[in-house]
This record gives sequence, C-alpha cells and structure tokens, in this order.
Amino acid sequence: MLDHIKTLNRLTEQLSRLPGIGRKTAQRLAFHIVSTDADDVRELADAMTEARAAITECSVCGGLTDTDPCPICTDPRRDRGVICVVRDTRDLAAMERTGSYHGLYHVLGGSLSPMRNIGPGDLRIAELLSRIDDTTEEIILANSADMEGEATASYIAKLLADKNVKVTRIAYGVPVGGDFEYTDEVTLTRALQGRRSAI
Amino acid sequence: MLDHIKTLNRLTEQLSRLPGIGRKTAQRLAFHIVSTDADDVRELADAMTEARAAITECSVCGGLTDTDPCPICTDPRRDRGVICVVRDTRDLAAMERTGSYHGLYHVLGGSLSPMRNIGPGDLRIAELLSRIDDTTEEIILANSADMEGEATASYIAKLLADKNVKVTRIAYGVPVGGDFEYTDEVTLTRALQGRRSAI
Repeated sequence: MLDHIKTLNRLTEQLSRLPGIGRKTAQRLAFHIVSTDADDVRELADAMTEARAAITECSVCGGLTDTDPCPICTDPRRDRGVICVVRDTRDLAAMERTGSYHGLYHVLGGSLSPMRNIGPGDLRIAELLSRIDDTTEEIILANSADMEGEATASYIAKLLADKNVKVTRIAYGVPVGGDFEYTDEVTLTRALQGRRSAI
Repeated sequence: MLDHIKTLNRLTEQLSRLPGIGRKTAQRLAFHIVSTDADDVRELADAMTEARAAITECSVCGGLTDTDPCPICTDPRRDRGVICVVRDTRDLAAMERTGSYHGLYHVLGGSLSPMRNIGPGDLRIAELLSRIDDTTEEIILANSADMEGEATASYIAKLLADKNVKVTRIAYGVPVGGDFEYTDEVTLTRALQGRRSAI
C-alpha cells in the first residue's frame, strides 16, 4: 500500500473492517472515494452517521426502524391477527420483498445457539409471549432451516403449545426454479416430509 | 427493500453507487452500519471526508498525496535519475509494493484513448517532458500491455526519442508462477519477442 499517504491508508483500514470487504476491495473503494466529487463523499458519510443515529429497534416488533413503533406495526392495513417470527430485520426484509405477506412481524434478534452462548434470555422471546392476546390468531415461525433456526423454532413452538393460538412453520423444500438433481439430501428430505395432497 | 426505513434506504442507495458494490452488498453493508457501534460509524465517515479533503495530486509527479510535493518526490534516498511512468496512483502503488524500485514516478492520469476521447492534452505528458533535465538518466514506461497502454507508451517513446535519455519499457511475458499452458497467445507472443540470452 501507499503507506506514505496517511489519510488514504486510514480510510483503507476503516473500509476493510466492513463485512465482506477485503484489503484489495477496501483499497479500490478508498481510491474511488478520494478521486470522486467531494459533495458525493460528504453525502455518503452523512448517510452513514444519520442512519446510525436515526435507526433504533421498534419497541413492538424489535425490527430496525427510524420511527417507533415502526411503520409496519402501525400500518392499519396489515392483518393484526398474524405474527411472523423472524431472526432479524434482514429476514423481515426478505419476507417483505415477496409482497405476499400482510401480517405483523416479531424479530427475535438472533437464534438459540449453545455454541455461541445465546440462550432464550438473549432473544426477544418473552416480548413475543406478552404480545399474544385475544386478537392473535396465528404465529408463523419463519426461522431458517439450519440447526440453530430449528432449535429456536422448536423452543418457541413448545412455549406456544398451551396458548390458544395456531402455530405454523413456513414450508422448506426444493426451491422454485432450483434443479432437483442438485438439491441437497436434507432439503429433499424436508420436501418429502412436507408433501401435500396433489389432487 | 425496507422502503419504510428512509434513512436505511438512503444509505443503501448511497453505498450502491460505489464501484463494484451491487444492491445486495449495499444492503448488507447498510444493515451492518446501522447495527454497529456509533463511534465506529463516525470514524469511518470521518476517514472518508478527511481523506477526500486532504488528498490532492502531487504537483511534481501527479500521484495522489496528502502533502505536496509527495513523500516519494521529496525522499532524498530515491534515485532521482530514473522516472517510472505509470497510468495512475493505483499502478504506482502496485510498483511500490514490489519494493524493488527506488526511482521517482510520473503519473499520467490515464491512457490515450480515441474511443473515450482522451488525447495527449488530457494526460500529464507535457509535465513529463518538462521534468526531464540533465540529471535524468532513464525513463521507464510501465504502461499496461493493453491497446491503450501500448498506444500511450509508443506515443511517449516517440516524443522522448530526441531527448538525451534512455527510454525503456518493463518486460511483458508469462507471469511468475503462472501456468504456461493457460497463458494466452498474446502474452506468449510477447514473452517470445522479449526473450533474452540464457547463458
């Protein structure tokens, strides 16, 4: 690196701390930033600090938001009888992109993981239980299908068993457009277990 | 995307303007930035604006620097008789990483390109000519081996032909550690043309 250009060096160092940004990408970005329009750089820097300052967790669903409660929780058009439980706001965003879900969300803030020392007290599970009232009809568990997601879904399903509410899990199986031949065994097994009447 | 989180949206938008950062990477980075320590975000934002404000072109070599003239141009340990001509500061950085070059540099700021309407007047060629004096022994043309680099090197070589200075080009050939079999024909041709006595 150009060790003698201190400010460029510091910027490269800072950029390489971002997830998925290696040393070479950081250097390329740093060169771009110091060569581009100063107003654009200022705008990007401001967008970072402003987003960081503005965004908090919604006190109802736990999702990231810049207004509290978040616009989904306060949207009168959403079906308040259904709550979809997701790991984090990124998973919530993925679900929103489908455009086919119109209920509410509950963001856990992670998955149960004995390996990483994450227990039920570290997730927003108590908040989920206290949200459930007479108007709640269904809780959809949309945890991922990996080991931690499975453990989390099972744990929550057990807690909800004695509540007067329907508890479902999203379907896991062969992805649409995915090649059957190249689908892994675990996914195929899940697809088989989740088979439904076709007539 | 989470269109309802305006500040997150704006940040994602800004990040996706960076070179090589697509929509998905931008979103991943934006989520990271709003979830990480506020001081770290401030530090990154400051590094950007400060680097942009501090960095200029060296008035001697044209390379990016935060002091003018740059530390390479003012370094008394460098061989002032040799000037290596490169396209931009990134190429200069690559050359510096070798640790085996101890002369000065001259940064052109691009390559000749009729396609992109870049002529000799757009590059720092006049500045190169006026730098050459009695102490200059050798000009090393380190342009890349693509069409534009070739054209630029030939153009400069012609201009320097009547100056009392040695003009050389770096060697192009099979990369060290590169597999001979998979080296492209043009590179192999160059390697053949550049052959040297082995005994």
